[in-house]
Order: sequence, then C-alpha cells, then structure tokens
Amino acid sequence: MLASHLPTIRSQFHFVIVNGENAAGGFGLNRESFDAITRAGADCVTLGNHAWHHKEVFSLLDDRRVVRPVNLPIGTPGSGFQTFDVKGDSGALERITVVNALGRVFMEATHNPFLTMDELLSRDDLGSVFLDFHAEATSEKAAMGQYLAGRVAGVVGTHTHVATADTRLLRGGTAFQTDAGFTGPMDSVIGADPEGPILRFTTEMHSRFTVKDGPAELNGVIMHIEDGRAEFVERYHHEERA
Amino acid sequence: MLASHLPTIRSQFHFVIVNGENAAGGFGLNRESFDAITRAGADCVTLGNHAWHHKEVFSLLDDRRVVRPVNLPIGTPGSGFQTFDVKGDSGALERITVVNALGRVFMEATHNPFLTMDELLSRDDLGSVFLDFHAEATSEKAAMGQYLAGRVAGVVGTHTHVATADTRLLRGGTAFQTDAGFTGPMDSVIGADPEGPILRFTTEMHSRFTVKDGPAELNGVIMHIEDGRAEFVERYHHEERA
Amino acid sequence: MLASHLPTIRSQFHFVIVNGENAAGGFGLNRESFDAITRAGADCVTLGNHAWHHKEVFSLLDDRRVVRPVNLPIGTPGSGFQTFDVKGDSGALERITVVNALGRVFMEATHNPFLTMDELLSRDDLGSVFLDFHAEATSEKAAMGQYLAGRVAGVVGTHTHVATADTRLLRGGTAFQTDAGFTGPMDSVIGADPEGPILRFTTEMHSRFTVKDGPAELNGVIMHIEDGRAEFVERYHHEERA
Amino acid sequence: MLASHLPTIRSQFHFVIVNGENAAGGFGLNRESFDAITRAGADCVTLGNHAWHHKEVFSLLDDRRVVRPVNLPIGTPGSGFQTFDVKGDSGALERITVVNALGRVFMEATHNPFLTMDELLSRDDLGSVFLDFHAEATSEKAAMGQYLAGRVAGVVGTHTHVATADTRLLRGGTAFQTDAGFTGPMDSVIGADPEGPILRFTTEMHSRFTVKDGPAELNGVIMHIEDGRAEFVERYHHEERA
Ligand SMILES: [Fe+2]
Ligand SMILES: [Fe+2]
Ligand SMILES: [Fe+2]
Ligand SMILES: [Fe+2]
Ligand SMILES: [Fe+2]
Ligand SMILES: [Fe+2]
Ligand SMILES: [Fe+2]
Ligand SMILES: [Fe+2]
Repeated sequence: MLASHLPTIRSQFHFVIVNGENAAGGFGLNRESFDAITRAGADCVTLGNHAWHHKEVFSLLDDRRVVRPVNLPIGTPGSGFQTFDVKGDSGALERITVVNALGRVFMEATHNPFLTMDELLSRDDLGSVFLDFHAEATSEKAAMGQYLAGRVAGVVGTHTHVATADTRLLRGGTAFQTDAGFTGPMDSVIGADPEGPILRFTTEMHSRFTVKDGPAELNGVIMHIEDGRAEFVERYHHEERA
Repeated sequence: MLASHLPTIRSQFHFVIVNGENAAGGFGLNRESFDAITRAGADCVTLGNHAWHHKEVFSLLDDRRVVRPVNLPIGTPGSGFQTFDVKGDSGALERITVVNALGRVFMEATHNPFLTMDELLSRDDLGSVFLDFHAEATSEKAAMGQYLAGRVAGVVGTHTHVATADTRLLRGGTAFQTDAGFTGPMDSVIGADPEGPILRFTTEMHSRFTVKDGPAELNGVIMHIEDGRAEFVERYHHEERA
Repeated sequence: MLASHLPTIRSQFHFVIVNGENAAGGFGLNRESFDAITRAGADCVTLGNHAWHHKEVFSLLDDRRVVRPVNLPIGTPGSGFQTFDVKGDSGALERITVVNALGRVFMEATHNPFLTMDELLSRDDLGSVFLDFHAEATSEKAAMGQYLAGRVAGVVGTHTHVATADTRLLRGGTAFQTDAGFTGPMDSVIGADPEGPILRFTTEMHSRFTVKDGPAELNGVIMHIEDGRAEFVERYHHEERA
Repeated sequence: MLASHLPTIRSQFHFVIVNGENAAGGFGLNRESFDAITRAGADCVTLGNHAWHHKEVFSLLDDRRVVRPVNLPIGTPGSGFQTFDVKGDSGALERITVVNALGRVFMEATHNPFLTMDELLSRDDLGSVFLDFHAEATSEKAAMGQYLAGRVAGVVGTHTHVATADTRLLRGGTAFQTDAGFTGPMDSVIGADPEGPILRFTTEMHSRFTVKDGPAELNGVIMHIEDGRAEFVERYHHEERA
C-alpha cells in the first residue's frame, strides 16, 4: 500500500517521514522493509518500542535516514534525531530535525521524554523540529504537544495505529495530532487478521496473529513548515479497495 | 458546552446518549451533572471506570436512563444495559438497547467484555443494540468492533477523550468509531489545565489537576439505525470560542 | 534439582504438588518436563500465566494430575481443579482438591479469582481444598488468604519465584504463604543468567534470557492437613552446591 | 509497634534505617510519623513511590536523616542519598552512604535506577553503600542485587510489605534480601483491614481502606558491614500479641 500509493503523491511534498517500527511483518524494521519504504519515497524512517525486534535493524542504524527513539541510555546504537537540509518552496535549503521519542504511560520505562526534549532543544542549528512521539496514552501525547507548543514545528503521535481527529495548530504554530494512524489492512485489528486478537480476547490465551490482507488504508499528516513553525496542518487518508 | 450546544441540535435526533463518567469535575457522575446532562437533552447516560468515584452515583442508578458498565460482578447496583422504545422517523416506536462495557487492556480487571456481550446478545427483545465500549487500547476496541460486526447496530469507544478518524460501517452494518472523543476545553490535556499534567510528567511526582476553561469542543458520533443495523455513521465535532 | 532432590524426601509426604509453569526452559510445561516432574514424585502439577506457552501442553491436559488455572473462560481445555483420594497417616483415604487460580493485579485480565473460588467452594465432596494462587501482587495474595481463611486448608502463592517469610496459619486453620518460591539456579535472576536481565534493565532493550546453571535451590511449603484444615505449616528450603 | 519494640533492641545496632513511605496512615511520611520513627531510634528514614503523598514531607527534606528516591529528575527537592559517619565496633568512625531508589517494573516511570547507581557509585568518599531498592518485581530487585554485587555493602528491597526468605550474601560480600517486609498489623492485607481490599477484589469497585489494629509484626534485615562489604546478614522478625 505504501509502496503503491506513496509514489503517486510523493512529488507534492518536500520531505516525507514514515514510522517504520511495524514494517517488518508487524514488528520492527528489517533491510527489506526499509528498502521498500525508502524506495517508495520516504526521506526519513522513525522507529518505536519495537525498534529492536529484528537484529537486522542494527545494520540499518548507520543510515542517516533512520531515527531510533531518543530517550534511551547513552551508548544506544543509532541516533535519536537527524538533521536534514531540504530544498523548500523557494528553492533554498531549509533545515529540519526529525526526532523520535518513546512515551512511558502503559509502556516500558525509558528516560523521561519531556526532559529529553528540553535537552535536545538546547542544541544549536536544529532548524524546524518535528517530533514523532511514539506513545500509548492520549494524556501523555497531549501533554507533550502542550509542552512543546511554540518550541517545535510539529508533534505527531504514533503507536496506537488509529488516526485521531484532533489535527490542529497549537499556540505558537506547533502542528499537532494525537496519532497519525497506520498504513495497512482495513477490517483488521490494528493490522492483524481479527481472528487472532478475537481468539485472544475470548479465550484469554495468547494466540498467533497474522497480517490481514484485502483493502488497505494509508494515513498521514501533512504540514507546511516555515521558519520553525507550522503554518498549516491536515490529516491525510487514502483507501484502496485492493 | 454540552449544556449550551446540545439543545441547539437536539431536535435533529431521536435519541441521544452521553458518556457521563467524567462529568463531575473530571471524575464520575453526581446528581448535579446528571441533571445538567439530561436537561441538555440526553436520553441515556453511560458510565465507565470512574463510575463509582462519587457516592452520589448510587442514588442515580435507579434512574432507567443511567447505564453502568455491564461486565461487573453479579450484585453490582444499577444495570449494565437499558432498553428504550424510541419514536423513529415513521412515528412508530423502535426499540434500542444501550450497553456500557469496560475494556481490560491497561485497565483494572473486570469480567471478560467479549463473553459478556455474547451472553447479553442471547437475550430476546433487545431491538437495535448500541455498545459504548469504555476502553483504553485501540486493539481491544477494534477487536470488539470486529467481534460484534453484523450482530449489533453500533460500537463506539470512549475513555481516551480523543476522537478517532476511523468512523466507518463494518460488515453487516455495524457503525464503528474507536473513540467518540470528549466534550470539554480545548488546549487542555484531556480536560485538565496542561500545567498539572506537565508538572507531573516533568517532575515525576503526582500533581493536582484542575479543569481548564476557555474555548471548548463537543465531539460525538451520529448514526442512523434501522432494524438493528446502522445505515449511516458520521463524526460530529463542534468548537466554541468561549 | 527437583529430579535429584525431591525423591530423597518424597517418602515423608502423602501428596506432593509442583507448580510446573516454568518447567520447560523457563516458560510453560512440555511432555519432557512433565515426565521429569512426575517421575521425581509429584502427584499433581499446577500451571500459571505461561500455561499455554508450549503447544504440547494441550496433550497433557487429559492427564488428571495436571491442573490449569481455574478462572479462565468456559470451554478452556483441561481442568482448573482436581480431586484426589490420598492415603493419609491412618491409612484411610483422605480427599484433597487442588486448585490453580490466576491473579489479575499486574497480570493479564481473567475471570475474577475471588468469585471463582466462591463458585468452586459451593461444590460438594471437595474434601480439603488447596489453592495455588499464581499471582504477582502481595496485596492480592494476602486478600485471597484472608478471603478463604477458615474455608480452605491452604493458600500458597506462586509466580514471583521468591519464597516469602510469612508462613503462617490464618484463622480457621488455613495455611498461608505469599509465595512458595522456585526451584532453580541460585545467583540467578528468578532463574535466568543475570547477564540477560541486567542487559535489559541497563540498555532498555529486550534481551535474550538463558537459564543459569551452577548451585541450585528448591523451595516449598509443607503442611499437615486434617479434615479440611491445616494443623501445621512450614517453609522448606534446600540448596545444592552443584 | 516500631515505637514500642525498636527501642528495646536499638542498643544492639550502630545504625538503623527505616523505610517510612507508608508511615503516615498508610501513605507517605508526615512530621508526626517522622518524629515517632526517629524517636524510636531510626538514624535514617528512606522513602518510596508514595514519598510526596503528604505535602508536609517537603518540610522534612532538609533533615539530613531523610532520603528520598535518587532516580528522580534533577531539581527534585531533598536528596537521594546521605552519607553518615557512624561509630563502629572499634569506636572509630565508619562511613556509610544510604541510597533510596525506585524500581520501574509495574510502577510509574522514573530515571533508570541501574544507570543512576552507576553514576552515584562513581563518587568518592561514599564509604559503605546501602541501597533500599523500593520496587515491585522480584526480577528487577534480583537484577539490581546481581548488578551491584561486590560493589555495595547491601541491597534490600522494600515496597511489597512482605519479607522474603532469600536473605543471603551475594558474591563480593553484598548482603541481599528481595524485600525487607513491613512493620504493621498481622492478619491484614499489607497493613489494611482485609475488609477493604476484599470488597475491592470481589466487587471490582474502589473501596476505602482502613488501617487494621490488633497483633502486629516488625520485620527487618540485620547486617554487619566492614570496609564496604557485608560479613553477615540475617532476617529479623518480631511479633507482638497486642
Ligand atoms: Fe506499532
Ligand atoms: Fe509501537
Ligand atoms: Fe474518561
Ligand atoms: Fe474512563
Ligand atoms: Fe513463573
Ligand atoms: Fe507465572
Ligand atoms: Fe509501601
Ligand atoms: Fe511503596
């Protein structure tokens, strides 16, 4: 779906970020899925709580397009943010820094993402900062949006796989959406054939999940950034009846 | 906001359900908030994990318009579903049963909501069934939608306070939206002044939350139900610049 | 360790119960580990939250010596309790019913274990009832002990892998210990070579755990039961310097 | 119980540490409970996840005998460790540093306690280091013991309120016990009258907890420390039939 649809709209954007933490069969990122995502037109691939699921990901971390969660211990392989110089509307280069951070509510404990962002934002030459906040709880995501409002160009959540309908510009020109949603099969349970999750929820035993096929959807957030602030933000949704 | 806006649109609908579990100062339902909600035009008030926050709620449970979570132990006061005969488009009475159920992922343990729904749906004379699934995880909500697809008229989630952009008709005519969103202050952290949650997330200490004032929003889901199935479902969103 | 030590003390007891949910390489039970446990002298093998880890367990559930958690949905394979007629001190047969139940605090949601025990205890002809309460939180285990005090012969917790020093007779003659502890390698992290867990806790990434070898310990609880009540309860601990 | 029994054995020890995070009516520490604990003979009072429950605790943080959790954000009031010069067996002063740290498994997220300990242990002049590791999961506590084995004099867990029977010297002379247990009423649910917790577990509603009275127990860990290492460690338990 990403491979088929993203190229058709790619030319309309200067920079495309894809969260790839569920790209390889539902968990993590491997060489094959990374190549497919970047071939489709992604300029940057962010990760999340399943970042390390496939060992192969370690060989991808040298690629400057890969951004793993930033709030992990010093010494963690890869980088939690990357700065890119992107050709903008005017043809001049504009600087954008992409950050990936993990939430902590209902998730494994990591370094405090709020304090980590403070530390990161004290750096020079970041240009416009965009945060992919990979988190579960709406409260933590909303608090991050409010915390960074006026300090970064955009905060968009990932991880719940369901796009939220709260796309808006926060005060000071920070684009915000609680969750970007996912790209994958419709009529699924966040990507999985419903049979597996339903079996799990009704039997209270663990069950194997398989990726659903059939009609698919692609969800995203589009924003126009100027001098470190967003001037416009909009939800993007595309469905394909397979 | 509910009190000011709901009456202006009330006449367009035959039946209005409001989740009231955060109506009383952020937690639970009391007499005052129940009266305000019903005066504004609600025909039915559902609850959730904070159902018992105010002792006053027990005196409200005799009111047939109040529906507490259904998947609680036998002997729990109040009722987990209520059946209403509503005058429909044609003027004839149409029967609707409103159910409230609690999810269990990232929440306190209760009776299995999937099995509870099976049990409930084996009853006669329920008419069109609508489930307010009060749950945190998108996976559990999606699984419930898929589980009940074609068996009930609608499954709409509540609890995360953020409306999701996945409103759709599932197979068999079941209206679905992962979360209905909330009614309350914008520029808040799910209702609270951002200061409290931000203090909590940055200091890692508990902090007091206060309800935010200022511009507010009302979120909802509109559906047209006919003979136990939904023919139409749509997200509703209204903002008021205070 | 179980295989080497249990036979040396087996003759001192009329009935031996072993929790086997971590017997097969750290998770679940398989044919090989079940055979080893029963050959060593176990009369009954209880399970826990990892009951279904190995598919092989399903073929073991027909064996009357295997008891899986009782508070699972109707239709779950196997049985949540088993009744045995055991030759007692006097040579006469004494009836004992062994139950396995799952806690819910900090664990996956299942049916309410307290209400499940009420239901179970309303049955006839159970004889002396012993509950292996497989649970994480000390509060839930203590509450279960207090709830069943005077109604069953013994409540012993499992799951945390660390024996607790609170062995006692509760009112009405119910033997209680919050956790029985485990049988496995000392200088381990609940059975695993410390390297794996330490890597996980310091890097905040998932890491592979391996079973530790070296000196081992066996932990257990000994009780003397008469007519449905315990007259005596004691902690058992044995270490073997490999 | 602490007030009545600790003074009777106080003279046998050079230094007494009490975890006081549940001292004030079950949660937190206030002036009254702090005074009672120190009057009874405590040289140092550690805290835990309920440290901030009472506002009064902030006025106690200037007292050098109070140690709050160390793995909290920079700028948190109080200190996460304190160094004391204690008169030892020989009459000469021996230095001991008491640290309090919070676990993160099944608890609120804080800074990584393992990495925080590394940082702390790089300091000079700490003398013998003792860690009160306030944590829920046995795995995290065991991992901390193994991580610090040979680097500190003692690691004793608190928070579960139930003493564990695994008191031992780890390699390199580090005294270890998963949990020290609590001081409070027997026949309680970790301090509370069983009625409250049982009501909660059977009704699945929140219920009010009251402190149980009646017979009480005091639990502790005794260790002999010499030059930064423990030479001896033993569990202490005392019961008083009211
Ligand atoms: Fe994901
Ligand atoms: Fe994720
Ligand atoms: Fe809510
Ligand atoms: Fe809720
Ligand atoms: Fe286990
Ligand atoms: Fe277990
Ligand atoms: Fe405590
Ligand atoms: Fe605690």
